[in-house]
Amino acid sequence: MARSNKPVVAVDIGGTKITSAVITGEGKMISRIYSLTLAHEGPKKVIDHMVDAVRLSLRKAGLDLSSIGGVGVAAAAIIDIGRGLVSDAPNLPRWHNIPLRDSLADSLGKPVFLLNDASAAALGEHRMGAGRGLDNLIYITVSTGIGGGLVINGQLYNGTDGCAAEIGHMIVLVDGPLCNCGQRGCFEALASGTAIARVAVERLEAGGQSCLTELTHGKIGDVTAELVSEAARRDDSLALDVIDEAARYLGIGLANLVNIINPQMIIMGGGVSRMGGMLFRPARKSMKEHAFKLPARTVRLVRPRLGMDAGLMGAAIYTQESLGAKG
Amino acid sequence: MARSNKPVVAVDIGGTKITSAVITGEGKMISRIYSLTLAHEGPKKVIDHMVDAVRLSLRKAGLDLSSIGGVGVAAAAIIDIGRGLVSDAPNLPRWHNIPLRDSLADSLGKPVFLLNDASAAALGEHRMGAGRGLDNLIYITVSTGIGGGLVINGQLYNGTDGCAAEIGHMIVLVDGPLCNCGQRGCFEALASGTAIARVAVERLEAGGQSCLTELTHGKIGDVTAELVSEAARRDDSLALDVIDEAARYLGIGLANLVNIINPQMIIMGGGVSRMGGMLFRPARKSMKEHAFKLPARTVRLVRPRLGMDAGLMGAAIYTQESLGAKG
Repeated sequence: MARSNKPVVAVDIGGTKITSAVITGEGKMISRIYSLTLAHEGPKKVIDHMVDAVRLSLRKAGLDLSSIGGVGVAAAAIIDIGRGLVSDAPNLPRWHNIPLRDSLADSLGKPVFLLNDASAAALGEHRMGAGRGLDNLIYITVSTGIGGGLVINGQLYNGTDGCAAEIGHMIVLVDGPLCNCGQRGCFEALASGTAIARVAVERLEAGGQSCLTELTHGKIGDVTAELVSEAARRDDSLALDVIDEAARYLGIGLANLVNIINPQMIIMGGGVSRMGGMLFRPARKSMKEHAFKLPARTVRLVRPRLGMDAGLMGAAIYTQESLGAKG
Repeated sequence: MARSNKPVVAVDIGGTKITSAVITGEGKMISRIYSLTLAHEGPKKVIDHMVDAVRLSLRKAGLDLSSIGGVGVAAAAIIDIGRGLVSDAPNLPRWHNIPLRDSLADSLGKPVFLLNDASAAALGEHRMGAGRGLDNLIYITVSTGIGGGLVINGQLYNGTDGCAAEIGHMIVLVDGPLCNCGQRGCFEALASGTAIARVAVERLEAGGQSCLTELTHGKIGDVTAELVSEAARRDDSLALDVIDEAARYLGIGLANLVNIINPQMIIMGGGVSRMGGMLFRPARKSMKEHAFKLPARTVRLVRPRLGMDAGLMGAAIYTQESLGAKG
């Protein structure tokens, strides 16, 4: 696919922080900066913070707006890609049908390209990471929530509106635990970092013995997925059980995707995936057990090559390819 | 896409019957015949029956093998499309890695193209039925089991091996009722005709009052989805409840697909779908409730235009397009 060789600025906007960087025409990332989203200030202010982040990255790189082709934005949100809207964003209060693309374009005087963050990561990993040259892959990010991105026939698949691959809200346990989205039994409510922390707390409250009590100084409400992981590394059996259960659900959700998409590869990133083997091994086993033999034999479950930069890189590539296609 | 204008023979092979027809270059179906699969006789004999069906259709049309471009086969099975194998087929005993494509090609001396029956129906409905001109659609067949087919960016999506869109075995209720595939809680185990019959029997055995007792002359083990539908049309409250429950699960499975694929349309065919409004209305409601607003607003849930011929037509189109692409 034709790709513009102008530098672009890529911005990753999440519930907590904004990451911004200049990506050169050769795909080199320079001048990365972090700032706070300050989501409680509302959409208008957050958009101002994003504009500031773009300008700061450029200044740090010794460039200005005239030297870039455009800006790519990866957002942890449901995106209406045709209209450039953030349709909904569970972690950004009051973001409903916010015209993020056009607001940024107006402020910056540059073309802006907006897409979902996990879709951006899928594209990044496909063009420059673990999935180079493959036809069909799924990117899954497991952190507080679960997001996804799809590459189909070598191209990012965004769906009709631009909100495809919302795999975190696939219901795998009807009437199961409540999810942040308001539904019950979503994949995310069973296999995310939030789910791991919730189940650990439930077991502690039910009298389970664990070094988590110590690690939280007795405040078991403070348990996080990261602490559960820490406890598991100390061979804590409660923590190991909780991770095994989440990994089983993770494998079931992945098996559903394997049966539906029949991909060559699933790339699993996000904070929770950094648990490594103790999550990947049981998740892979569960995935293989719950999918049909033929697609289960084909698919490889791997870690990202671009790490936490996959979304930024993908947003840049999306921008460069979109600019290339236009002219 | 280039399409050969030679006539082809299309064959639909299911667990019970073989349907075969000649499809002209203009897409007209002639000389359709039905024969029995006689699956218990094993793969070799069934393939012989398919060869006979192809020859009989041709004779009835006043044609012979020299006048056709090839043969398209739609099979109710997991297909390894690259190797032309029936990888697995729950309704065809002993069909494991059977080289159906090459066996037929050898017997007939003609190119043979093999694909899953629901994928064939998706293609048929996209090219000549309810989904003409759309970019992204899902075909779902609800009968004894649940099958699916995907059209993505205007093209049939078969996945890496050719076995994509196995939506019937998406797990929606972990540790739920046993499915024919050996897993628990599959979409198919909750929303298919088999599920409807099973739940009705369970409720009758638990003492539920229903005209189904009469309709089966007291042999409640003989309850079928068709009889439950018949009872529901007589306003039987047990039957209506059972259908509502299946429709709720149907909507949940569809919502998962809506969130993952974000299609413009879902076309629901198969025997159970002939229940019409009493299934479609609650299924549509449940789908909209369980999916995100943006993709739920976009998608339309409709009936097939080609009816039971979608698979045959799709197998013919697949063959004509494959021959056209080869030149």
